[in-house]
Amino acid sequence: MKIVLRIGYIGTSFKGFQKQKETEETVEGYLERALFKVLQRDPKLKGASRTDSGVHALAQMVEFQGIEEIPTSKYVNILNGSLPETIRVYEALEVADDFHVRYSAQSKTYLYRIDCNEVPLLTFIPFASFCPYKLDLAKMERASLDLKGEHDFRSFAAAGHQVKDFSRNITAVTMIKQENNILEFRISGDGFLYKMVRTIVGTLIDIGRGQIEEDAFKKALLDLENGRQHLGKTAPGKGLILEDIKY
Amino acid sequence: MKIVLRIGYIGTSFKGFQKQKETEETVEGYLERALFKVLQRDPKLKGASRTDSGVHALAQMVEFQGIEEIPTSKYVNILNGSLPETIRVYEALEVADDFHVRYSAQSKTYLYRIDCNEVPLLTFIPFASFCPYKLDLAKMERASLDLKGEHDFRSFAAAGHQVKDFSRNITAVTMIKQENNILEFRISGDGFLYKMVRTIVGTLIDIGRGQIEEDAFKKALLDLENGRQHLGKTAPGKGLILEDIKY
Repeated sequence: MKIVLRIGYIGTSFKGFQKQKETEETVEGYLERALFKVLQRDPKLKGASRTDSGVHALAQMVEFQGIEEIPTSKYVNILNGSLPETIRVYEALEVADDFHVRYSAQSKTYLYRIDCNEVPLLTFIPFASFCPYKLDLAKMERASLDLKGEHDFRSFAAAGHQVKDFSRNITAVTMIKQENNILEFRISGDGFLYKMVRTIVGTLIDIGRGQIEEDAFKKALLDLENGRQHLGKTAPGKGLILEDIKY
Repeated sequence: MKIVLRIGYIGTSFKGFQKQKETEETVEGYLERALFKVLQRDPKLKGASRTDSGVHALAQMVEFQGIEEIPTSKYVNILNGSLPETIRVYEALEVADDFHVRYSAQSKTYLYRIDCNEVPLLTFIPFASFCPYKLDLAKMERASLDLKGEHDFRSFAAAGHQVKDFSRNITAVTMIKQENNILEFRISGDGFLYKMVRTIVGTLIDIGRGQIEEDAFKKALLDLENGRQHLGKTAPGKGLILEDIKY
């Protein structure tokens, strides 16, 4: 039986989601070891998104092969009892065998938070990156419109990616400045390339600060050879939260 | 010239506020070293509250001896540039020479947060303690009334205190259950004994769970010899935030 978990984690505590030979400190590593203890066999774990080191998740989805002896609803408490405090399992659901936690996903939403106060708010320090500079939000809003729709986003992929198809469909980009001076970006799409969300946010900030031109996204999408040069800095991982995955 | 700073910190990163011989990882230690670099002499640092290991602060107040060459307003940026990210300086004010950051304080307010969800909310994990049990809030409210006013609180002081006067005046105890199932306690008074706030909150929780009687505070305040036995567990440090100090 295939089981899907919705999990959350504080990325600061881990070297990213994906299991690595070099370190045990990955979210996937902890989950796999916790499941192995319960099932006494390889859980065949798969995650929906390979979030980077430092990136948080409220709704990472993982699938594994459960066993008949354990009712699906029990996994939440069993796993939360043995996982580190900074990884939490929120839900467990049985799914059909042809479901694939990664390929069946229709849409993902990432939240990115920037603390625009002069000195960062204490409780946002772990979950937002800090940007005390004056930002031209109207300019950033206009620039973000160029991202929407289906495009070849190869210029937005950081070195180290392993994909051949760079076509992605961005369905929504929103920016909301909260009363406490926290600026929230939400970016939804059918998928994202390696560090693509952080490149988008970093570029929006540099546009807002007046360090690069408003048409940077347009230029990067047209220039498939050297598009990265038009874009801004990659925003730090700690402001990023994988917020939702729709199937 | 005497200068007062309002600082905040994430207690998880430090072994408490107070400087210790055994470790450099205290808030006071970091501040003193940062100030020494700027002033090139002993800053004569004093803090208003000795928050324990793991306890956070939004409004810890510290005083030090500044120098004429540095305008008071500059200390915020100078210090934030060299302190760890999890200690932030929010304000700097010049005060009269007879001001004492500790003895001039009229009132302190501590916030304690409990996450009452079945699985803790991700962004509250560092700043709340977790309590998934059913709590009788009305009973807790009634019990809290016994704390108000001036009492001998010696039964509430954990071992390791160094005071002789146990009389404290508690001016307010409030409990608010937020929509997201975070229960917030606010406790104000003219001062608190060692671990007193955490003993109060831990006892309120045990009363709410039905593990000890509603009149526990009353009994502990009357029984000056063996009062501690009537009280509940000491709540974990990570839910506690020093929120305000009034002068």
